[in-house]
Amino acid sequence: MLNPNRLFPAASAARAVAIKLYETVKDAPILSPHGHTDPSWFAENKPFPNPAKLLITPDHYIFRMLYSQGVSLESLGVPQLDGKESADPREVWRIFAKHYYLFRGTPTRQWVDYTFENEFGLTDRLNEHNADEYYDIIDRKLQTPEFLPRALFERFRIEALATTDAAFDTLEYHKQIRESGWGGRVLPTFRPDAVIDAEYSGFQDNLKKLAESANEDVSTWKGYLTALRKRRRFFIENGATATDHGHLTALTADLSLLDAEALYERIYTGKMNPGDVELFQAQMLTEMAGMSVEDGLTMQLHPGSVRNHNLKVYEKFGRDKGADIPSPTEYVRSLKPLLDKYGNEPNFTFIVFTLDESTFSRELAPLAGHYPCLRLGPPWWFHDSPEGMMRFRETATETAGFYNTVGFNDDTRAFLSIPARHDVARRIDCAFLGRLVAEHSIDEDEAFELIHELTVNLVKKAYKL
Amino acid sequence: MLNPNRLFPAASAARAVAIKLYETVKDAPILSPHGHTDPSWFAENKPFPNPAKLLITPDHYIFRMLYSQGVSLESLGVPQLDGKESADPREVWRIFAKHYYLFRGTPTRQWVDYTFENEFGLTDRLNEHNADEYYDIIDRKLQTPEFLPRALFERFRIEALATTDAAFDTLEYHKQIRESGWGGRVLPTFRPDAVIDAEYSGFQDNLKKLAESANEDVSTWKGYLTALRKRRRFFIENGATATDHGHLTALTADLSLLDAEALYERIYTGKMNPGDVELFQAQMLTEMAGMSVEDGLTMQLHPGSVRNHNLKVYEKFGRDKGADIPSPTEYVRSLKPLLDKYGNEPNFTFIVFTLDESTFSRELAPLAGHYPCLRLGPPWWFHDSPEGMMRFRETATETAGFYNTVGFNDDTRAFLSIPARHDVARRIDCAFLGRLVAEHSIDEDEAFELIHELTVNLVKKAYKL
Amino acid sequence: MLNPNRLFPAASAARAVAIKLYETVKDAPILSPHGHTDPSWFAENKPFPNPAKLLITPDHYIFRMLYSQGVSLESLGVPQLDGKESADPREVWRIFAKHYYLFRGTPTRQWVDYTFENEFGLTDRLNEHNADEYYDIIDRKLQTPEFLPRALFERFRIEALATTDAAFDTLEYHKQIRESGWGGRVLPTFRPDAVIDAEYSGFQDNLKKLAESANEDVSTWKGYLTALRKRRRFFIENGATATDHGHLTALTADLSLLDAEALYERIYTGKMNPGDVELFQAQMLTEMAGMSVEDGLTMQLHPGSVRNHNLKVYEKFGRDKGADIPSPTEYVRSLKPLLDKYGNEPNFTFIVFTLDESTFSRELAPLAGHYPCLRLGPPWWFHDSPEGMMRFRETATETAGFYNTVGFNDDTRAFLSIPARHDVARRIDCAFLGRLVAEHSIDEDEAFELIHELTVNLVKKAYKL
Repeated sequence: MLNPNRLFPAASAARAVAIKLYETVKDAPILSPHGHTDPSWFAENKPFPNPAKLLITPDHYIFRMLYSQGVSLESLGVPQLDGKESADPREVWRIFAKHYYLFRGTPTRQWVDYTFENEFGLTDRLNEHNADEYYDIIDRKLQTPEFLPRALFERFRIEALATTDAAFDTLEYHKQIRESGWGGRVLPTFRPDAVIDAEYSGFQDNLKKLAESANEDVSTWKGYLTALRKRRRFFIENGATATDHGHLTALTADLSLLDAEALYERIYTGKMNPGDVELFQAQMLTEMAGMSVEDGLTMQLHPGSVRNHNLKVYEKFGRDKGADIPSPTEYVRSLKPLLDKYGNEPNFTFIVFTLDESTFSRELAPLAGHYPCLRLGPPWWFHDSPEGMMRFRETATETAGFYNTVGFNDDTRAFLSIPARHDVARRIDCAFLGRLVAEHSIDEDEAFELIHELTVNLVKKAYKL
Repeated sequence: MLNPNRLFPAASAARAVAIKLYETVKDAPILSPHGHTDPSWFAENKPFPNPAKLLITPDHYIFRMLYSQGVSLESLGVPQLDGKESADPREVWRIFAKHYYLFRGTPTRQWVDYTFENEFGLTDRLNEHNADEYYDIIDRKLQTPEFLPRALFERFRIEALATTDAAFDTLEYHKQIRESGWGGRVLPTFRPDAVIDAEYSGFQDNLKKLAESANEDVSTWKGYLTALRKRRRFFIENGATATDHGHLTALTADLSLLDAEALYERIYTGKMNPGDVELFQAQMLTEMAGMSVEDGLTMQLHPGSVRNHNLKVYEKFGRDKGADIPSPTEYVRSLKPLLDKYGNEPNFTFIVFTLDESTFSRELAPLAGHYPCLRLGPPWWFHDSPEGMMRFRETATETAGFYNTVGFNDDTRAFLSIPARHDVARRIDCAFLGRLVAEHSIDEDEAFELIHELTVNLVKKAYKL
Repeated sequence: MLNPNRLFPAASAARAVAIKLYETVKDAPILSPHGHTDPSWFAENKPFPNPAKLLITPDHYIFRMLYSQGVSLESLGVPQLDGKESADPREVWRIFAKHYYLFRGTPTRQWVDYTFENEFGLTDRLNEHNADEYYDIIDRKLQTPEFLPRALFERFRIEALATTDAAFDTLEYHKQIRESGWGGRVLPTFRPDAVIDAEYSGFQDNLKKLAESANEDVSTWKGYLTALRKRRRFFIENGATATDHGHLTALTADLSLLDAEALYERIYTGKMNPGDVELFQAQMLTEMAGMSVEDGLTMQLHPGSVRNHNLKVYEKFGRDKGADIPSPTEYVRSLKPLLDKYGNEPNFTFIVFTLDESTFSRELAPLAGHYPCLRLGPPWWFHDSPEGMMRFRETATETAGFYNTVGFNDDTRAFLSIPARHDVARRIDCAFLGRLVAEHSIDEDEAFELIHELTVNLVKKAYKL
């Protein structure tokens, strides 16, 4: 099913180089410095329940496409807020198999095929006729020791895997993993959105949790900042090397102390003026940058997603149901306050992502090609795909160079797709480098060095792994 | 003149697949669900007057390019508002021939060459030396029965052709065609812009025409909506399967009944507040969506064109003179009110177009890859070209898939260019699929299925043909 | 080091055509109608001081990339505002050599390699080991007569080279060149930003210099305009054929005489209202267009760069230090006032550039494909690169055609990079045309004609050379 030369250029000169490059990285370890797997999997090491629960229900790439073509989320067993959820996993699987043709031309197809062939030895294209057979084979394998989370982690050659965790998280599973004696490296990532975005669900409660977890009074600006500092320290003690910030925009601010205190007071008491929520997030990005300068955590910013766009889906199913839609994102003016303050700090690493591809050549590559702190995150979310990755290299490299990029992020909660996603990323990098060599823009020995940088070294450096 | 492999990739593996795919669709029937041909041509079936009037004067792709290089619109016989128009058609043709080199690298060149060779058997490149000979040959042929509109329609293998018609149109030509016993399927499309856009020329008169055509009092919001419902019903009775909406932006609104009534009152009486014109258009998109849910007409939205940009050209020559310029267009927030209300309706088909290509990967593909109602219209207008079509497939497919697209629209008032335009679209789809096969992203049997879907099935499904 | 087929497509059919096309233009004369070389070089014809001062210190493409990876500007000998500057040129060179790998995949790499091989006969890749050897060889050559500015100018086959000069410049070096008897054609370009942008450093002083240079009282709107007219006349007498305007946006305005007088009064007296600075620039673009209609100077507009983004770098090192960042730029509405007034003037040439590539297919190509005055400037600055140039051809050609473009601008202050930059541009044009031929979109004889148009004829026509 999987051609060994897939995703390589069809033109022979570039393909020949790509094939040679790929040979040198196809078995390289996986560094996954940003993602959304569940640390309890590795702490508890229980079998995954069934093929549908493992491969379909948690993957919004899959159910959003099915939904767009008239398949109901209920029939796919997507969890509902009221807890009702009755879909039979085998039925869910059959629906997926019957509609598998919808994924033609999408990265999901590449990921799922890769998983079928490499993890389960299944080499026919999935369809409604072989659906049950596939289900049975996968289901049986999931009950074997080879398919327990830790065994898969090792088989995938994962050298480090970062999860994403709330600022007030106890990190108990991370501790449990560390104390278990198992050698897998699973790191937490400090994600404070829930205590920074005043429109986040349960914001006031989240502040209380922050106060408790830090044992700090957060009713003042100073106390709030101290609590965050303590929590960052706690994350570092538990292995974290990075923070992550998901904001609607890339806006940053640098208020005076008095203004910041007053703003926090309004946020804390819920007596916000119009614009306060966004301004507070903007100010907090700059505060977080300052703390990164202090404590060395690499900072990641993921802006530009309009969350929960589909009102009815949100009301019934809640967050993260494939209805987050990218929107135009401005960086040049937005990042200036933060960069004015910390942009030239030598030990600060600030990785910026985008969902607006037009910004790569226009804003992000020029910024990353100048500011010492800035690095470009890999193509994110919808753009984490062969064409998207290739466009990223084509539009960012000439101005930012390769060395202001940070390798690949799989950014997934679909654990089994991790090797498939890294494989796609490696192939596209090989294809891009193959073309540069075939067009004599770089020499072949440089391409061999670069593919190793892109796959391993730049990730380790940027994320301090 | 026309190489059989034109527009196919130059790289051999992809080209070989593209050639095979094309063989299976090159003679497929033409479905033209959106365009601007004149129904009177097919009702009256009179000969086209002369080569210039057929091929040049009505084609703004042609005269805009000539005008941009200093050729006056007067010399091209473009109709003037004062009715003065004296250009000799042969002279117009000579000017076109002399400047034919200007179209190198443009789709116009492809369309005209295709028409020359396939419709008129002319295989030399047009230039000032063979201009007269070409004129004479074309002119003679136009007087033959084989070049009457209905004969061409049949020779082009057009299975269905939609025109675009005002909400108050009598559709007399459509009736005449139907009653003539001729088998050609020419459908009207309900285009209510002239009674929705309060800045449309003759808006108040248009409302009167609407009232008369529907035999309804449109002085109230309720009456106005009823009139529109009745006219939609009338269009359906005359074969329509779709509506079309050309707006400056994609803004939608969902006002309360009271607010909508008050807004309509201000619009109807001409006592608008600032912003009312846009708000009314926004509200009407949502109303039209609601009516589509009721009556099943597929809804098309074409936003983003700043019309009549050249003041002096507009004053002398009027609308549609090649001076409509695309502008940045936002969809995510703009469409939300409509989608909140009708986005999950199972029988609603809402086809969205864009002139802002940056929105394909950022906004439109993510929206279409989630909402059950949404489909992506093909590349429109300036982007209805080999590179534009290829960028569309490259930027939209990975997130929207093929099945949330709707095939090709020729969108033309240049009747003879229809087969040429469909041929270009088929070739580019073959080229794209050929590359996916050559890069092993899809299997060859899938590509054969897909090219048929893109050429025929998805069009029929989206437009209910 | 330099493969003769570099930058050509790897696919054989297109590459074969590209190679043949390139043969016909590789030795064509260089027309450099827009750039930032120093006229004193050619007036005084002194040796360039050393390799670092010639190749590194003045090239912000180079030091911005080094800076982004932690190399200090001080260590590179970038001039500081306080005049302190102590870097040893050999040390600067060593730093550059050691970090030369950072430029992999960037156009800088192509330019520098070209210069090494073609100007200095150096064919090994630069690295820390051969750094001293390279330094010595280059340093010695710079002291030879063959490397004096005029000798290089001739060796580069430069037919015309435009500099960029303030409105109040004495043009003494241009006069000196002309009166020297040397045959090299070095033209000034009228760049009035410093007397139009009220936030330009030293604006009030600049107005005084304008008044003195024109011998005109500029305290009134009329006197100010007269002074500008006289200075344009002075530039024309000294060989200028063009003006250039670097604005933050593309905004234009067309105020009544009264409003313009009042606005100028506020600008002149420094009593500006909010928005006045931008409005005045907008009005002045329209005034400059009007003067171009009168005196025939081709007008160039370069909008969209947010200057001096890095506050700390700006404070220490001043302007033009690689911290100018592109930002989204709107053209359709912005240019309308100017185009309403002068867009249809037959003898007006208005060349518009962009740093926002998303505007090529959306706004600029449609505008240039309609308005007789408009031409598209080549890809500018960050986009002056193989991928950027290719995207320009791919996104602009289908709507604007080739004939609404104006050839290449090297836009550089790095004199030795001029042949390298033109070579890259020619190669990419050959590659693009090669593909069009290989895909049968144009005939091969047309490609041969077009490559000559793009390299020579269209430049001469647009810039009246």
